Amino acid sequence: MAAGGCTAGVVLSAFDYKTEKYVIADNKKVGFLFRVIQLAVLVYIVGWVFLVKKGYQKREENIQSSVMTKLKGVTVTNTTNTGHRLWGVEDYVIPPHGEGVLFIVTNFVETPNQRLGHCAESVKVPDGHCKSDEDCTAGDTVIAGHGIKTGRCLNSSGTCEIYSWCPTEQNYEPLDSMLRKAENFTIYIKNFISFPKFHFSKSNVLDTKNESYLKRCQYNKVLHPYCPIFRLGDIVKWSGHQFQDMALKGGSIGILIEWNCDLDKDSSMCNPKYSFTRLDLPNSSISSGYNFRYARYYSDGNGQTFRSLFKVYGIRFDIMVNGEAGKFNIIPTIINICSGVALMGAVRVFFCDLVLLYMMKKSTFYRERKFELAKYEPFH
Amino acid sequence: MAAGGCTAGVVLSAFDYKTEKYVIADNKKVGFLFRVIQLAVLVYIVGWVFLVKKGYQKREENIQSSVMTKLKGVTVTNTTNTGHRLWGVEDYVIPPHGEGVLFIVTNFVETPNQRLGHCAESVKVPDGHCKSDEDCTAGDTVIAGHGIKTGRCLNSSGTCEIYSWCPTEQNYEPLDSMLRKAENFTIYIKNFISFPKFHFSKSNVLDTKNESYLKRCQYNKVLHPYCPIFRLGDIVKWSGHQFQDMALKGGSIGILIEWNCDLDKDSSMCNPKYSFTRLDLPNSSISSGYNFRYARYYSDGNGQTFRSLFKVYGIRFDIMVNGEAGKFNIIPTIINICSGVALMGAVRVFFCDLVLLYMMKKSTFYRERKFELAKYEPFH
Amino acid sequence: MAAGGCTAGVVLSAFDYKTEKYVIADNKKVGFLFRVIQLAVLVYIVGWVFLVKKGYQKREENIQSSVMTKLKGVTVTNTTNTGHRLWGVEDYVIPPHGEGVLFIVTNFVETPNQRLGHCAESVKVPDGHCKSDEDCTAGDTVIAGHGIKTGRCLNSSGTCEIYSWCPTEQNYEPLDSMLRKAENFTIYIKNFISFPKFHFSKSNVLDTKNESYLKRCQYNKVLHPYCPIFRLGDIVKWSGHQFQDMALKGGSIGILIEWNCDLDKDSSMCNPKYSFTRLDLPNSSISSGYNFRYARYYSDGNGQTFRSLFKVYGIRFDIMVNGEAGKFNIIPTIINICSGVALMGAVRVFFCDLVLLYMMKKSTFYRERKFELAKYEPFH
Repeated sequence: MAAGGCTAGVVLSAFDYKTEKYVIADNKKVGFLFRVIQLAVLVYIVGWVFLVKKGYQKREENIQSSVMTKLKGVTVTNTTNTGHRLWGVEDYVIPPHGEGVLFIVTNFVETPNQRLGHCAESVKVPDGHCKSDEDCTAGDTVIAGHGIKTGRCLNSSGTCEIYSWCPTEQNYEPLDSMLRKAENFTIYIKNFISFPKFHFSKSNVLDTKNESYLKRCQYNKVLHPYCPIFRLGDIVKWSGHQFQDMALKGGSIGILIEWNCDLDKDSSMCNPKYSFTRLDLPNSSISSGYNFRYARYYSDGNGQTFRSLFKVYGIRFDIMVNGEAGKFNIIPTIINICSGVALMGAVRVFFCDLVLLYMMKKSTFYRERKFELAKYEPFH
Repeated sequence: MAAGGCTAGVVLSAFDYKTEKYVIADNKKVGFLFRVIQLAVLVYIVGWVFLVKKGYQKREENIQSSVMTKLKGVTVTNTTNTGHRLWGVEDYVIPPHGEGVLFIVTNFVETPNQRLGHCAESVKVPDGHCKSDEDCTAGDTVIAGHGIKTGRCLNSSGTCEIYSWCPTEQNYEPLDSMLRKAENFTIYIKNFISFPKFHFSKSNVLDTKNESYLKRCQYNKVLHPYCPIFRLGDIVKWSGHQFQDMALKGGSIGILIEWNCDLDKDSSMCNPKYSFTRLDLPNSSISSGYNFRYARYYSDGNGQTFRSLFKVYGIRFDIMVNGEAGKFNIIPTIINICSGVALMGAVRVFFCDLVLLYMMKKSTFYRERKFELAKYEPFH
Repeated sequence: MAAGGCTAGVVLSAFDYKTEKYVIADNKKVGFLFRVIQLAVLVYIVGWVFLVKKGYQKREENIQSSVMTKLKGVTVTNTTNTGHRLWGVEDYVIPPHGEGVLFIVTNFVETPNQRLGHCAESVKVPDGHCKSDEDCTAGDTVIAGHGIKTGRCLNSSGTCEIYSWCPTEQNYEPLDSMLRKAENFTIYIKNFISFPKFHFSKSNVLDTKNESYLKRCQYNKVLHPYCPIFRLGDIVKWSGHQFQDMALKGGSIGILIEWNCDLDKDSSMCNPKYSFTRLDLPNSSISSGYNFRYARYYSDGNGQTFRSLFKVYGIRFDIMVNGEAGKFNIIPTIINICSGVALMGAVRVFFCDLVLLYMMKKSTFYRERKFELAKYEPFH
């Protein structure tokens, strides 16, 4: 009955057989409470499911993206042992083919003219230390070292002689970054995305006739939000750090490009948002910094090969693209409406049960009876 | 009452105390309408939730994938300033280690025998122009240029003298693609996937005894859907463009491999689908094309280093793998059945309420009374 | 009525007009059954939705991750045609910049001192075979070969003469892996993750004061679960294979780092789990193995370039990071509670309907009537 009587927010009444009176729930109170609950549910469905969560749209999170990067800038370094060195894009960008994950050299330690041969292991390698030849078993590799032990212990250095690229790498920590000017290098980020399900594709490059703008502009959240050219120094700054600090030992920065597109609107409203975060932990002494080694191999006139070993420090930029698009679709719309209706119905039942229970507590007749009854009596 | 009376699709009746008559909803109409709604819900649950959305399966979207690529093909280019050059896989594939994102050279501009020294900045660099030495402050880098100003202004070229790799890069746009034959190169894509949750793994390489087939076959949607060897020209064609057009200035193409596996069926039914889309916008003059620079460093007999600078245009292939698998699992099955049941119940309540409301409108007694009542009366 | 009468688990009764008796469902049975169902629903909501699925949390699956790798180890190879060769990190890690996808050379075939010129195509290339000059059309590229046909057929080899890097690559399959000791190389994996929505970031590197520990430790599931240094041999072993087997022809291994963080707990409880799986299929003869070619270019005194061609076999490591985090949030909590309530209500309605139906079957009066009625009668 209750459920039935409830439906129109009507009075709930139960007949008390003891007192021969009716227990009647106050029409207004119950009705009002009921409406409030209905309203809440309605607000949830319309406000949350449809407006906030866009329940009438089909979502597409599988974004296809292609990132291409291009740097501009050149600088000169001057080291005692190699003199002037010019750093162009082809040198300081690794890998050179403009990928979405790129490393930019900001500092380096060069060990030129290494040749295969025998020399002393660096004193910095614990496993290389020795007192006598016994400590240097021939053929063993030096753990975390540079070569293979030859079996001799060199008194001059107190380390084992090794077969290796000699001289061994210069093992000093750089005190200052060589490519300070890298701060002014600019990176041009081309990002093409597409949402295959919706046959929609777009680029982060402003679609403008004014090409010179794209040649000169520099990204700025406020002034030039759609300019795809970024100054390295700015990127680091926006990530909350100082370029020169990072330049010394290197680090890793994430450039996040977010596309949140409502394809029911015009495509010109679908624009990327950039955010910049440092991806390594600058504080922890062990895990901060970013460096690696590579070598350039040469051959002299006599067919002998020699090499220059570079230990490069720098900043790695991870360009991460994610996004989602939504477009009106009938199926989710129907489903959401239905489940909204269902919720409405279910919540009401629940509500009515509560009210009825509460009333039954109030009425007393069921104490007399073995089993409880709720009753409607015609008025005659 | 209604809810109760409704449940078995019975007659809905309300007693009108004014007219002493019964308001009875037509059994057939209501019952039929009700059945229709029930059917709709049932169809939704069975048809959509279970059959279409496979609600009885546990889904796994976290696909582990490893892509390895291998190209085949060789071609010769003939340029005035460097003569014959042979392009093998080790040259035109960058990076050489067969990754899922690879770049294939289709065109290039070479600047051989560059040496560090002093020369005139290219006239194409605006910042390099000068009238007098004042315009060339020593030590300044030329913005978007090739080197560092030495302080002298060269009248011969009307540009500043710079410390750079000389001669500066040949700055012409290629009019024709050098590696036209790249169209016939083939790419062998190995893709290994696994769905860790289901301990299922598979490869896109047809599991056949006939190895010679895999050595000779060429992918074709209809004839050879499971052959993992693709002709570059075809890939570009399938993406809706012309290879020779792209070859000139380069571009970016996405190769999408999709795995949608119903692991309740045999694993031989779990096969990849390939699709090809161009990821850059060919029309927009600024953002189309793909090129970058790299240098090869040499050393002459006297320990002097010189280099060849390559500006390479080409096509980048992004091989993107995504997919999902489903397998019967009891938990989602139960949950979906339950929520189906719940929906049934809820919709019914809602329906009954509507009917009751409609009836109450029809009946008049509640206008007399302060509170409305729905009643069932035995017929005597 | 039923729905109403049902609510408190009360007796369900229906008046049978034929027998003038009441059909009364056994209070205990029905009530008990009803409670059981209620309990089941409650268990589902509390146990599954809230405890297992953490329905009170906002989930974040969009994990930002940056992986950097660093290898340690050096070894020597001794080949007849190139003598001793030292393999350092800068040589055997490709690409050298510590990426999340890296290739480690375990075997190689070197073809030194190649120069551009004319020589015989390898006999292994079917398309290169010839009987007479007619078979070698000048200018044609040899399919899957090394160069361009010159038009001559060399009787000595029975293959076409080609313009290529000569001599052509040594085309033998390695019988033993040259870099056996690579098994003992160690890889240091730095993984920085962050959940932007929660402003939470962490590294897999144990945050310890004891740095020497991180220099010496080696990952072990039991003993050192938080040490980020892995021995290559172990990784392969944990993936269920033998290093020396893979080293010969190469392969691909996935290192999966999983972060499942409950950010309601302390951040020290948020730790990565490592798992290792082989990503290629070792059995299938065609698709197993991993190798590619690269060349080192040199210049002799006379400005002539020559090169060494390397065909390297090795193991590719794909470091894949995925994870999700959860943190208490009011919105999902409310939504889940509501839908729980809704489910409760809905299931009840359904239950009551069933009971009523069952009862109506039991009672007979509706057979007499055109339309069915359920009735409550006071007992007097």
